[in-house]
This record gives sequence, C-alpha cells and structure tokens, in this order.
Amino acid sequence: MAQKNPTSSLIIIGNEILSGRTQDTNLNFIAKELGEIGVVFSEVRVIPDVEKTIIDTVNELRKKYDYVFTTGGIGPTHDDITTLSITKAFGLKLVRSAEVVEKLRNYYEGSNRELNEARLKMADFPEGAEFLDNPISTAPGFKIDNVFVMAGIPNVMQAMFGSVKTYLKHGRKILSKEIAAYVGESAIAAQLTSLQEKYPDVEMGSYPFVRGIKFGTSIAMRSTDDARLQSAHLEVYKMLQASGEIIN
Amino acid sequence: MAQKNPTSSLIIIGNEILSGRTQDTNLNFIAKELGEIGVVFSEVRVIPDVEKTIIDTVNELRKKYDYVFTTGGIGPTHDDITTLSITKAFGLKLVRSAEVVEKLRNYYEGSNRELNEARLKMADFPEGAEFLDNPISTAPGFKIDNVFVMAGIPNVMQAMFGSVKTYLKHGRKILSKEIAAYVGESAIAAQLTSLQEKYPDVEMGSYPFVRGIKFGTSIAMRSTDDARLQSAHLEVYKMLQASGEIIN
Repeated sequence: MAQKNPTSSLIIIGNEILSGRTQDTNLNFIAKELGEIGVVFSEVRVIPDVEKTIIDTVNELRKKYDYVFTTGGIGPTHDDITTLSITKAFGLKLVRSAEVVEKLRNYYEGSNRELNEARLKMADFPEGAEFLDNPISTAPGFKIDNVFVMAGIPNVMQAMFGSVKTYLKHGRKILSKEIAAYVGESAIAAQLTSLQEKYPDVEMGSYPFVRGIKFGTSIAMRSTDDARLQSAHLEVYKMLQASGEIIN
Repeated sequence: MAQKNPTSSLIIIGNEILSGRTQDTNLNFIAKELGEIGVVFSEVRVIPDVEKTIIDTVNELRKKYDYVFTTGGIGPTHDDITTLSITKAFGLKLVRSAEVVEKLRNYYEGSNRELNEARLKMADFPEGAEFLDNPISTAPGFKIDNVFVMAGIPNVMQAMFGSVKTYLKHGRKILSKEIAAYVGESAIAAQLTSLQEKYPDVEMGSYPFVRGIKFGTSIAMRSTDDARLQSAHLEVYKMLQASGEIIN
C-alpha cells in the first residue's frame, strides 16, 4: 500500500513508559496524523533514557526511513538526555541558541520562576537545528536533518507536531473504512482471504470483539486509492451481510 | 539498576496500532507485571503484519534479551501471520496439535459456530512449542525457546500472561516511590542531579505537570534495594519540601 508515500518511524524515549508509570498516547496521535497526510508509519521503538541506546536507535532508523520522530527527554532535568544524545548521534556540536534564550527570558519574566541553568539547557541544540514551535511552554523541539525531536508531554508534543507537518512531504492520504458485523471472524476468514487477494492494494485487517454474549468482527480497510477502497468496501459489506448481522 | 535481573522486550505486532485504529494498552499492563516480578523491561517494538519484519525482529531480540514477548496476530484470519513467521524465524516445522484441535472441538461444540479450517489454523504451532493457556477463548498462545507469543486482545493477553509468568525467572522486585510537589522541575533540577549522583542505584525520573494554573513536578524513584529507595525518598522529600508545597 502507498508505495510512493514517504516512510517514517517513531522513537518513544522514556523510562516512565517502560516502567508502566505512564500510558503512552503519543503513538496513537501521531499514527492518525500521519495517515491524514499520507506518510507511512512503519515502526515504533520504545527505549529507555540511555545515551548509547538513543544514539544507536536514531542512527539506525534515520538511515532506514524518510522521517524519524522522537518524543520525550528534552526538559531541564538530569534524565532529559535526548538533545545531547541526538547531537552526538549526528557528530555535531551542542550550541546555545541566543534566540531561544531570549524567548525563555521573556516567558519567565513576570512569573515567579527564574531562568536558571537548568532552564537554559532547553536552549541548547545541535548546531544547524531548526526549531519546532512550542506555543504551550515556549522551549521548542527541533529538526535536524530528517529527525524531529519533540516533547513527551502530550499537549506539548501535539502542538509541536503542527510545526513538524510543515516540513513533511505529504503523500497520498491513507483512506480507511470499517464495517462491523455479528459474525465470528473464523466464519468469514476464507472469504476475506479471497477478497484480500483480489485487492492487494487495500490492506484488510480483521478484528474480533465480544459485546455481551455476541461475537462480532470488524473489518478495517485502508488504501490510498479511493475507488479501489469503495469497491473493496462494497464486497466486504455484501460478504458480511450474507454471513451475519451488520452493525455499522 | 537491577543488573542481575533478567531482561526482556516486547514486540507488538499489528497494523491496527500503527494505523491509529487501536490504542495499545498491552505494553502498560506487561510493564507493570514485569516490575512486580523483577524482570527488566528493556525495549518495545511496534511492527506491522509483515512476515520478514516479524522474522528479523524476533531473531534480533531473542539473542539480545533473556525473554521476548509478542502480542497480536495469532487468530484465524489472513492477517494473522505471527505463528507462521515465528516458526520460520526459528527454522522449525509448523505442526497441528491434536491436543489443541480437541480443545477447540469441545469449545465450539454446542455453539452455533463450526470448527472450520480457519479455526483449525489456531491449532498450528512450531514443533516443540509449549502452550500458554487461554481461559477466555481456548486457542492458546505458545512459548518457543525464550519467545512468548500471546494474543493481541487485552483480556486474552492478560489471561495468557498468567501462564507466561510461570516460565520466567523472577528477579528482585523493582520497587517504586513517587512524590509530587508544586514546584517547577527546573527549580529543583540541580539538586535532583546531585541526588541522582548520590544514588546511582535508584533510578530517578522527573515529570512536570500543570494543575489549573499551578506548575508541579513528580519525582519517580525505582530500585530493587528497599533501604536505598527509602533513603533516597527521604532526601527527595526534604528537597521538595524546602522548595515547594508537597502534594503527596
């Protein structure tokens, strides 16, 4: 599907995800956004706040995909090592941005919080990086080559992703349709296999569910080709209708 | 932290996660369970339903970690390719288990659903696999060497994880404590760095938050050494108390 669409991957950096302290929701947000703009979301890695792991993962994935996104680890504390690690991954110098220092100064002025050394760390970037706006709490994310570095806090990440999108080559939007019916997925498995073979350009997923005591199946279809998606949808609809009770 | 504890990784297999259709919750469940039994959760990958990707990822991670868990793709439909892919990853033969066929026959008998070829596919396993009980919908997961293959549906996965745990070498439980206070994380960043240096065996994470108009920080601490954790907790508590208003 979408062979000419750009490809991408996400690196979720954070011990808090791997410890179970925090339920990640950034993956799901980014997945939906990428579908809208026709960027294929190929792979996600969740890794700890360990410099070597960050460096190795960034260097592996930035060669493999058109775009790499990262979330987490760009704050002011000792466990925020993403910026420095990525700077090292690229073999670049870490430099303090006078422009960002000024922005932070304006932001903290008039608050009872001072612009201390910890906060100034958020003005450090790999040399040559471009900034990803942070309308929530000022300290920006950044883009270096094909790597986009964002905050881990969901509303800040979401705001930064607005800037990220302006850099991405948009592909053909990935369209989707879904139909659910009260029919066990095994009952329609053979027919669905035939339909998937007939429509190799429409990715079909089968997802069973239980509502009360009734078994059902949702068929999700995705394609960049609207006509083919409509046609596949119609055939799946007829197949489900003949086998069970359509829900929606 | 926990150098002698076994290590592990999770492979989430499923287009529905990468498309944004489904919000994964299995990672968070497994993370918490592993902390309880002292197994380090080192890395997670989210990959699509693509045979070569599954094979390569399983073969990479099973050499790297003591345990590999997988979720998703073991149902009866065309997109359920996990079992076959993992069988190929190990260079084994796929064999139909008479024992599981019998279980499935009993399960479907008396329902209006027949044990068709699609359902029988769920009785196929790599030769030599051991079964992971599925008290919810019968078709089991399996263990082959150090790889544990589970369903993607959360309640089924959770039930299977009960069996998985019986195979795992338990390490020292990873204990955690957390304190939140109304203080910006930058304000305490320098002191926290010193404390982290003093307690290298207590992993400290700093997580900022906003409640209404008040800024706050949660400090999460993890260690396998209870005495060290208590001691670190006390020092972090005093530090936060001196800097801001403790919430809990």
